[in-house]
Parts: sequence; structure tokens; C-alpha cells
Amino acid sequence: MSLQRLIVTTEQFSDNTIHLTPDQQHYLHRVLRLRAGQAFIALDGEGGQWTAILTDREDTAAIETTHPLASLERPQPQITLAIAIPKGGGFDDLVRQTTELGVATLQPVITERTLHRPNPKKLERWQRIAAEATEQSERLWLPAIKPPLPWADFVGQSSGSQRFLCVARQSAPHLLSQLQSASPEEKTSTLTIATGPEGGWTPTEIDQALGAGFLPVSLGPYVLRAVTAPLAALTIARAVTQDWGRQALKSHSQ
Amino acid sequence: MSLQRLIVTTEQFSDNTIHLTPDQQHYLHRVLRLRAGQAFIALDGEGGQWTAILTDREDTAAIETTHPLASLERPQPQITLAIAIPKGGGFDDLVRQTTELGVATLQPVITERTLHRPNPKKLERWQRIAAEATEQSERLWLPAIKPPLPWADFVGQSSGSQRFLCVARQSAPHLLSQLQSASPEEKTSTLTIATGPEGGWTPTEIDQALGAGFLPVSLGPYVLRAVTAPLAALTIARAVTQDWGRQALKSHSQ
Repeated sequence: MSLQRLIVTTEQFSDNTIHLTPDQQHYLHRVLRLRAGQAFIALDGEGGQWTAILTDREDTAAIETTHPLASLERPQPQITLAIAIPKGGGFDDLVRQTTELGVATLQPVITERTLHRPNPKKLERWQRIAAEATEQSERLWLPAIKPPLPWADFVGQSSGSQRFLCVARQSAPHLLSQLQSASPEEKTSTLTIATGPEGGWTPTEIDQALGAGFLPVSLGPYVLRAVTAPLAALTIARAVTQDWGRQALKSHSQ
Repeated sequence: MSLQRLIVTTEQFSDNTIHLTPDQQHYLHRVLRLRAGQAFIALDGEGGQWTAILTDREDTAAIETTHPLASLERPQPQITLAIAIPKGGGFDDLVRQTTELGVATLQPVITERTLHRPNPKKLERWQRIAAEATEQSERLWLPAIKPPLPWADFVGQSSGSQRFLCVARQSAPHLLSQLQSASPEEKTSTLTIATGPEGGWTPTEIDQALGAGFLPVSLGPYVLRAVTAPLAALTIARAVTQDWGRQALKSHSQ
């Protein structure tokens, strides 16, 4: 099995030492039963990773500087998913799975047909889930999870990147072909993809998005639920754009 | 809202009449509160769909034959997912979501690192979930759900189609590029994609698959959980092969 991976904040670092939080001490020493001299991988969630060795003090670990691990470049383009919040606990699974699949930013949106208004405390829970999924999926970047926004507010503020609106039961080009036929100008360093609620977008919501420059796209012939569409959209976008990072990407200012 | 969709078996049809089961009568009359003269869409799960009108008798519906709905051709290629059964109740969600995403056959497999051995009664439950998801996603074909098989047995019996083994942490071409560079001979009418358990395939299991002709493929740089990898693999395979059906596909005998 590979080494345990653990996200630490930059404030926890000083002089090649990591100051472990009580939760991390408990996890490493009690749950995993690691001892002084044993190693784990520390991540800062921003591309940095280090081999860390537990010391005789339970609250610190030493960074192994003679063999630092590589810090990779952040994968491009960075993908923002704007997701109409699904019923019940569905957003927890979405946070976990879109983190595994490489989302950069998650923007929960509230639409006319969104039945579920999340408790504001959920944001903290989603960030904790995203940190766990980052560790487990061996990615190096923590996704940003934004507080929920009404759809009209989100549409009004997002700009710059290529933006796609996933629609069902309408004739629209498939997201795959749309991305594959992107011109160099359309290969932006950020992409935004929005997926709707149970029951779909209202005509007004679609008009708002198209008016703001979103392109309508399809995810295939069947109707996907609100918990499935974001996974399909992200999977396709990540797979198609995996080579874009090696080309020059067009960077837009916000 | 669109009309309710309901799967009926071929034995329920006779002379343009559908004989409704007690469960269906309850659902249409009590839950949805439809009355005589109101319509729903009957599906046989094999590509046929009809407008059905409830009659004065609660146990029958009449098929509207003057305006029969089109029966579409089955999407090609047909995709079989061989999925190492995840921990806990994860397979229920996989049945629902892979049905939405267009799987043709689901083959649960038991691997060395599969911790969860499902109760044989689960198969009936999975088939019920697949029927519901077929109705809700507006697809016309019921996926086939096979009883769980040990990995070695499955590898030994599957042949004919193009077969892919999804592997993590190894250098393998991405499933997307592998499918997009398929030669005409490799565009078979069926595809098989296998995804592994928590902890991954054992070296022996990988050897068994490669020895039987599976091609190793990657689903991207991060480690996906056993409940996420099948969704990513199916999404990519369906998106890339959406045009294959309009070309001549090579049909293999088993």
C-alpha cells in the first residue's frame, strides 16, 4: 500500500517542521498507529507535496528535504462546475466524486426548481469531504467550494472563460464534439460547465445563460439526474482537455 | 411535464391491450391519480414504446395504434461494464447511474480485494432499480444485469468484443485516445470495460486479463474510487462511440 497522504495548511509549516493539529495527531498515531520515524506524505493542497517523518514529539513531523517530492504544475484548463443542488444528501457525493475527477471549483447554484436549500454549515462539511477526497485520489490541488448562489447572480458574475450549459431533450451539440472542435481562441485556461436541477432549467434560466454567452450542449440521448450530469460533464471535459495544458492556453482576466 | 413512462413485459400485451399488474394499477391510479382516458407511455424495455390509454377497467390499458411511437434501433456499440462490487450499498447507485448513462450489460465481478459479497437476492433489487432508471432516463432498453461472477471466470468466458481493463497508477493510454484511434476492425458492436475494487486489481488479476486480450487503459491522473471509475469509463465510451452506430460495426460471434 502507498503512504498515507494528508493535507496540511501553510500555517502549519515552519523550518522544515510540520505542526500537527490534534485531529491529525490522533489520526496518525491512534488510527493509523504510525510511530516516530515512520513517514507520510504532506500536501499543501496547492501542488506541493513532501515526505514527512514523525518525530519523537507527537505534535510534529519533520520534512524530508534531501528527497523533496516534485511539485507539479496545476492541470489546465481549470474547470468550474456550477451545479444545481440536488435533493437530499446528493451534494456530499458530488463533492467527493467531482474532486476525484479533477474539478477546480464547485459552485452550488439555487435555481427555480431547486427544492433543497442547504444549511450554511454544509459548506464546511463539503470542504472537509473535498480534502479527504483530495488525499485519497492522490491529487495535489484542493478544489475551491463556493457558497451557494442564486442562478441569476452566478450567470451575471461569471465571464471570461468558455461556458457551457448542459440541456436535456433539446437539440444541442454534444459537449465532447463542442470541446474537440474548439479553436485556439476557445481553448481558455478556465472552463465553466453548468448542470441543472431535477425537472430541468426553466426557459427563463436558459435565456439568462444564453444571453450571458453560455453555449448549450448535450450530454447524450438520455435524461441524466442532477447527481449524474455533473460527473458526466466533468469526465468528458477533463478527458478532452488533457492535452490542452501542453499547448498555449488563452488566459482571460475576470 | 412529460407523460409517465412504464415498463411492461411482452406477456402483458394482447390484442392492443395491456394487462396491468396490481403494482402498476396501484401506481397509475392511486399514486399518480390517473383516470380512464388518460395516457402514459408503455415501454417493453427492448426498443418498443406505445402510447397507452387507461380504460374503464382498472386492470387494463388500450394501446393507441393510430399514432404508434417510433421504435428506435438499439444504440451501438453495446457496452458491458464488468464492475468489482464496491463496499456497502454502492452497487445500487451504480446500477441507477450506469443505466442513465446507457450501459447495455452490467456484470458484477468478485475480485481478490472485493470485501463485499452480495446477497443473491440483490439481483432482483438491482433489476428493479434498472427498470426505474430506464423509465426515468427516457431510454428504451432495459440493461441486462448478470449474477456476480468471480473475476477469473468472467475473464475466461468473455471474448469477441474489444475489451479494456481500467488501471490506476500505471502508464497506460487514456480510454478516450484508445477508442478514438480505433481501427475499423476494432470498432466492434460490443465493448467490454472492467473497473477494479478498492485497493485495485492484484498483479495476478491484471495478468489474467492481459493474457485474455484485455487492453490496459487509464481514466486520468487521479485514483478513482470503485463507485466512480465505472461512471467515468462509461461516459467516455458512450461519448466517443456515439457516431460508430452510423458506420458499419464489426459484429463478432461469441
